[in-house]
Amino acid sequence: MAVEAAARVPALTNIATRLRIDSVRSTTEAGSGHPSTCCSAAEIMAALFFDEMRYDPRDPANPDNDRFVLSKGHAAPILYAAWAEAGIIAHEDLLTLRRLDSDLEGHPTPRLPWVDVATGSLGQGLCAGVGIALNARRIASDYRTYVLMGDGETAEGSVWEAAAVGAHERLDSLCAIVDVNALGQSQPTQWQHDMAAHAAKWSAFGWHSMVIDGHDLAAVLDALEQARRTRGRPTAILARTLKGKGISLMEGKGGWHGKALKKGDELDKALAELQSQFVREDEPAQAIPAPARRQRPAGKQARLAAPAYKLGESVATREAYGAALARLGAEDDRIVALDADVKNSTFSDKFEQQYPKRFYQVFIAEQVMIGAAMGLAARGAIPFPSTFAAFLARAYDFIRMAAISNVNIKMAGSHAGVSIGEDGPSQMALEDLAMMRAQPNITVLYPCDAVSTERLLEQAAYHQGPVYMRTSRPKTPVIYGPEERFEVGGLKVLRRSAADVATVIGAGVTVFEALKAHAQLQAGGVSIRVVDLYSLQPIDAASLIQCAEETRGRLITVEDHYQAGGIGDAVATAVAARGFAVKRLAVPEIPRSGTPDQLLDHYGISARHIVAAVREG
Amino acid sequence: MAVEAAARVPALTNIATRLRIDSVRSTTEAGSGHPSTCCSAAEIMAALFFDEMRYDPRDPANPDNDRFVLSKGHAAPILYAAWAEAGIIAHEDLLTLRRLDSDLEGHPTPRLPWVDVATGSLGQGLCAGVGIALNARRIASDYRTYVLMGDGETAEGSVWEAAAVGAHERLDSLCAIVDVNALGQSQPTQWQHDMAAHAAKWSAFGWHSMVIDGHDLAAVLDALEQARRTRGRPTAILARTLKGKGISLMEGKGGWHGKALKKGDELDKALAELQSQFVREDEPAQAIPAPARRQRPAGKQARLAAPAYKLGESVATREAYGAALARLGAEDDRIVALDADVKNSTFSDKFEQQYPKRFYQVFIAEQVMIGAAMGLAARGAIPFPSTFAAFLARAYDFIRMAAISNVNIKMAGSHAGVSIGEDGPSQMALEDLAMMRAQPNITVLYPCDAVSTERLLEQAAYHQGPVYMRTSRPKTPVIYGPEERFEVGGLKVLRRSAADVATVIGAGVTVFEALKAHAQLQAGGVSIRVVDLYSLQPIDAASLIQCAEETRGRLITVEDHYQAGGIGDAVATAVAARGFAVKRLAVPEIPRSGTPDQLLDHYGISARHIVAAVREG
Repeated sequence: MAVEAAARVPALTNIATRLRIDSVRSTTEAGSGHPSTCCSAAEIMAALFFDEMRYDPRDPANPDNDRFVLSKGHAAPILYAAWAEAGIIAHEDLLTLRRLDSDLEGHPTPRLPWVDVATGSLGQGLCAGVGIALNARRIASDYRTYVLMGDGETAEGSVWEAAAVGAHERLDSLCAIVDVNALGQSQPTQWQHDMAAHAAKWSAFGWHSMVIDGHDLAAVLDALEQARRTRGRPTAILARTLKGKGISLMEGKGGWHGKALKKGDELDKALAELQSQFVREDEPAQAIPAPARRQRPAGKQARLAAPAYKLGESVATREAYGAALARLGAEDDRIVALDADVKNSTFSDKFEQQYPKRFYQVFIAEQVMIGAAMGLAARGAIPFPSTFAAFLARAYDFIRMAAISNVNIKMAGSHAGVSIGEDGPSQMALEDLAMMRAQPNITVLYPCDAVSTERLLEQAAYHQGPVYMRTSRPKTPVIYGPEERFEVGGLKVLRRSAADVATVIGAGVTVFEALKAHAQLQAGGVSIRVVDLYSLQPIDAASLIQCAEETRGRLITVEDHYQAGGIGDAVATAVAARGFAVKRLAVPEIPRSGTPDQLLDHYGISARHIVAAVREG
Repeated sequence: MAVEAAARVPALTNIATRLRIDSVRSTTEAGSGHPSTCCSAAEIMAALFFDEMRYDPRDPANPDNDRFVLSKGHAAPILYAAWAEAGIIAHEDLLTLRRLDSDLEGHPTPRLPWVDVATGSLGQGLCAGVGIALNARRIASDYRTYVLMGDGETAEGSVWEAAAVGAHERLDSLCAIVDVNALGQSQPTQWQHDMAAHAAKWSAFGWHSMVIDGHDLAAVLDALEQARRTRGRPTAILARTLKGKGISLMEGKGGWHGKALKKGDELDKALAELQSQFVREDEPAQAIPAPARRQRPAGKQARLAAPAYKLGESVATREAYGAALARLGAEDDRIVALDADVKNSTFSDKFEQQYPKRFYQVFIAEQVMIGAAMGLAARGAIPFPSTFAAFLARAYDFIRMAAISNVNIKMAGSHAGVSIGEDGPSQMALEDLAMMRAQPNITVLYPCDAVSTERLLEQAAYHQGPVYMRTSRPKTPVIYGPEERFEVGGLKVLRRSAADVATVIGAGVTVFEALKAHAQLQAGGVSIRVVDLYSLQPIDAASLIQCAEETRGRLITVEDHYQAGGIGDAVATAVAARGFAVKRLAVPEIPRSGTPDQLLDHYGISARHIVAAVREG
């Protein structure tokens, strides 16, 4: 093999040189970007794309293509250059880098069919890689997953979350390559070129680790082959490199992060230097080996029979979530679930009990839970990662990138709000609606009973793009019949009369406070309209405006959430165009421990406060 | 020493037994909580609080007290029990656990003077511990910092971020104890009792690691002594324990996470069993060694002279931020700064150049950046952690806990919005205002020019509680004179006439779009009011209402941020009580790469769009 690899080196050397030239040219043309970090990775990219990986350049949708994640997303120019070299995009398009009319953005996004997940927030790629590798197992494909990282980004804890899960799942189809160029943005990285220190960490986390010279193509090829032959654990290749390799002006030097070369002398000299690095080829480059197109049954949307709950039955929405997930899992094997060691609280264990092979335990590591879900979703699974809603905040940067990627992940957060009771504020999600709504393409659902939970979970599964469902800890009565329909973007008017003096809009646990307030007011001869706003984003603006028009322009929202960014703001935005304003009842401050009922009342969102707000007006 | 330690064991054994009894009693009385995780840590807690740590139980404010962080916050009952044992709180108060009228919450919060930072979101304590240990160096104290973690939480990547920084900073005053009880909430932990696997990770991250039997008090004492004698690196003690130790019903058994014992037989049997574990004491427990109260100069609020910028000068607010931080740092040595390897973009390097000893480089690891800032703030520093605003999303769960802790951290996020240009959406913060505003006690500031940046940074430093300041990448003209004053909760009316037909409210870069729109409309004979809303939270509701009243009730907000949770929502909430509605111009979708001006226009927040919005109305 060594001899054979050696014969392949000259052609790959020339490819690496062309990738450097293209990276330099495109960034100079753009006037910004990261040529230096491209140059450190040129041999690795050449070896991966033109020797190691099996993929069909004409068919990005082939599910058996090997996958590549550029975790160091700022090296996008060399990724685009590799595609041009492979014939995936036109060479001249490289010079449109970073332009508003080009999909060759500053960092890769899935606007491009070869990109699974957007990168550019460092330390995320390996989490996605874990999900992509788990997907290979799910669809019984032998594709391999390669993730290229910088050494700087291994300071991100998410990398070590991914490392732990990769080892736990024995993902031998996963290979991480760390381009150890030792220079961060603003100074040398923490471990710099201490290659033993790098390798020790990967080994300690259960990976097969190797140290190589990342500019020695034969060594790169050999390491990739060793990784391919390794069984039972993933491989990390620690490649010692120089930032700016091949251009003496920047090679191994600080101060060149994120700087394009200037047109004129600076560029010309660099190009001349790179040109001189071409070698005589004895052998032509080998053709990219494409995997055969295997026929697989297309995924089919399941339709669940009506929920089996009875009106008035007392069921927590978190429990209905778990039951619904298990039901849907029976009908559609693309459904998978991920847990961060709270499955017996979120009730995702109901799914695990039925479909253990489609259930992934990542332990207490929310970033890799969302990141792996992104990878799974990008390759065709329909993943439901869930945990306490409060702890989704841990993964907010991943959720942000999931929105940019527009991937099909279905997040669920349980234990929302003060209604969880005694555990106290650290366990209460009171900003999750704000954080999810802030992303313009995340669908936000918040059911109040078991029937709506089941119906909305089904909707969530087949709604294209990221979805968030908020569930609650306390048991709540079933208020909807089994045939009731729920739509993304809908709402339900639960109480209505011609004499309504205000509309009270709740969701989740506050729907029941609103119903109690309705009964109390009714007893005093006052009618209010009550709305269950189970879909916050998109939102049924027309119905809300109609409610306002029919109830004296008075809208009162009540939510188990802080004020900013929650239900009140969602409604206010929806009705603003018609000049209506909204009165908001929300948790006004950092809460403390107490019983659920005490807390709902203490923080101003119980029936008593709704009654007072209606009467005030 | 071994003999001496052995002599101390019987008294500590009895303390451990009392701590178990109190933990069981208080959780049973509360009807919820975590006795099993308390029991695994009883010997560790007894050794720490009644043998190893030096602190004055009567003086929580003594800056030289050794510090303890209960990272496994759900073990709060045993922390409270230790305080009762030390005479810090009354023994009978333990039975108020988890009650609304008690500060003994389900998880510890700084409502209690011995708690530096709230815990309960796992994996955060060591990050705070790093900050607390850095503070010891800052104030030249020899206090030591102890962090008690569970093994389950070491799956959180933030633990490894903290481990890396602890090693990099050579924090030998920091000692992590991992209570390896091998049982998570829902199943065994990933590495369970594979103690070598645990230790290998800490060693690989550069720590002195030790494996002990966590129920062998002599071994615990010995390990703590070894840690104290270790120089140049922090120590991790991996303590093999059993969850529920001492109560046969739950000892080492799954299914007992977060379950209080039932009153009656279940409790009585457990208590009888624990009572039987008392041993005859040959020696009384030793007194807790209190450090002397050393006099230190009190921190004094600095007053900066007027900014030196000239009207019309072009300066990015991010650059003004760095310059202001360096100015303030000269006047007040409590000011410290933390960076995640972007100091040359946020310009915090201006501070580093002047005060390298008060500048902490955590590398690309935003969670430990915020967590360490929390620890520093809790011990009297005024920390300014900064990075790209987009990457603060990485630390949102830490920011959530910082809000719960109400610590004095001053966060700054640069590169906000589409106005960063070509780097693309992964680098653009478009949800940071939503995420910060969602926390009710975070002050949110957003200056538009260099003078207001400098003035507001000074305000931020001395405003009690967490503060967020958003800065921008592009250069903007200085529009305020050096004597202009800015207040938390204020705004500036930049253009005003009696004929104004609408109020346009911007902040940051959009202030200049609003001013351009004003000029264009003025040329056509139309007057508008222009507001610089530099303080979003708190917000000057009265002035906004006055503007609305004086400009035909028309308020138009324009922001380089997604719609939900940003400036529009802040204004709408402020004016809702008076029935005014708001028209919002905001970034409506996931943006792409382009030039700053192209993007401002393409996404509907340029002067042209403001003009159109005014004319539409």
